[in-house]
Amino acid sequence: MTRKQLAEQINQKKSYLCVGLDTDITKIPQHLLGEEDAVFAFNKGIIDATRDYCVSYKINTAFYEALGAKGWMALENTVKYIGDAHFKIADAKRGDIGNTSDQYAKAFFETLPFDAVTVAPYMGSDSVQPFLNYTGKWAIVLGLTSNKGAADFELQQCGEELLFEKVIKTISSWGTDENTMFVLGATQADSFIKIREIIPNHFLLVPGVGAQGGSLKDISEKAMTRDCGILVNVSRDIIYASTGKDFAEAAAAKARSYQSEMGLYL
Amino acid sequence: MTRKQLAEQINQKKSYLCVGLDTDITKIPQHLLGEEDAVFAFNKGIIDATRDYCVSYKINTAFYEALGAKGWMALENTVKYIGDAHFKIADAKRGDIGNTSDQYAKAFFETLPFDAVTVAPYMGSDSVQPFLNYTGKWAIVLGLTSNKGAADFELQQCGEELLFEKVIKTISSWGTDENTMFVLGATQADSFIKIREIIPNHFLLVPGVGAQGGSLKDISEKAMTRDCGILVNVSRDIIYASTGKDFAEAAAAKARSYQSEMGLYL
Repeated sequence: MTRKQLAEQINQKKSYLCVGLDTDITKIPQHLLGEEDAVFAFNKGIIDATRDYCVSYKINTAFYEALGAKGWMALENTVKYIGDAHFKIADAKRGDIGNTSDQYAKAFFETLPFDAVTVAPYMGSDSVQPFLNYTGKWAIVLGLTSNKGAADFELQQCGEELLFEKVIKTISSWGTDENTMFVLGATQADSFIKIREIIPNHFLLVPGVGAQGGSLKDISEKAMTRDCGILVNVSRDIIYASTGKDFAEAAAAKARSYQSEMGLYL
Repeated sequence: MTRKQLAEQINQKKSYLCVGLDTDITKIPQHLLGEEDAVFAFNKGIIDATRDYCVSYKINTAFYEALGAKGWMALENTVKYIGDAHFKIADAKRGDIGNTSDQYAKAFFETLPFDAVTVAPYMGSDSVQPFLNYTGKWAIVLGLTSNKGAADFELQQCGEELLFEKVIKTISSWGTDENTMFVLGATQADSFIKIREIIPNHFLLVPGVGAQGGSLKDISEKAMTRDCGILVNVSRDIIYASTGKDFAEAAAAKARSYQSEMGLYL
């Protein structure tokens, strides 16, 4: 999906919500556990209930890998079920030497129909470049994450700047704002203004709203661009809104309320 | 596998070789492509031919994910086939916020019988800690990698030290030399002496010998500890020694020659 197409989706739906499918088999409603693929059955319910209120889905690969090959099958079924109207993110935090990142890019962009993959920057240029070689596909590189461990390295001084600033400055020059986004945690709202000085126009993927406590209002006011320029991810707060038979309706209500609030900021 | 058990394997076999199963479906011998699971058939041939000459196998998850769920099944079959006498590494470069790294640890240490997972350090403490909570299991954290992109961030000055030095110094204090190893590329041999000042006793996983050009003699002389303290990985140079029907015999010959050279340094 190109930036223009993504911006059109955001404009049509008055939403920049990304629903995170961090589907934990131990947290899905009991009545689904009898299904042959309970994880996919749960995701299907969540997707059908929320697709009108969000522009993107983010599949957290860890929760699927924890189930082995069966989980990887649920991941494949889920990304194919979402379809082409939504921006599909593999939240995989991949990154390795060039010949190996080539294989990760193939896994998510060719074998599977994802639009974007989250990428870890530590190993540098040849670990990121393979994700930038596909037209209409995106590398979403870790900038400043929402977890407490962000303080250990990302927020350390490296020369004139902090490490995450160096990462964003350097990697934004490898690609363009048509194929590169950055992860910036909502819990790091103080950094959004500084980030926009470095990358005024790149899209940001913003996790950390909801269960992690980040403020939607705060980051929307600080980080938006002319074509929105942010995707705000909410996972647990939407998909586990109810653990009963009404899980899909409860998720829809939560997603709708995020969409309504986003309408105010657009 | 505990450090004591790994050291015993190294001592018995007079080898600290790790064979990297970066199995690329486009590079395996034609005659195997008819097999129902050609990747597993290839790996089985390589494992049977090399198991006496190595103490470890490293499965590069990217090459399996590129094939989708079928590839993940080949990965499962392969790690189970290796058995308990070898140190089994998932070269996955994982790392995410705590609740997600928990799932990655579960994927490789509970669902699959790996002894170790390679971990990317960028996101800090809560992204690494979940891999340190299993007795007899290991986190192998990226220190200084063998690729050219290592210069972009790993070799950048961060305060008093280089980023990779800060990473190794910091993370070595989160675990012990019984549950934490570090990746140090063989192409970075000049750094081994410095590294041993920071972590005199941690095991190092050393890729970059063979196709990437690192010197086995050089790193062995610079990095060994009393119980060896290094695992040297070779992938392409062994598994693609021949692309014909004799691929297994050719791989065995290569592995044996690495083992013989290692015998001189032990």
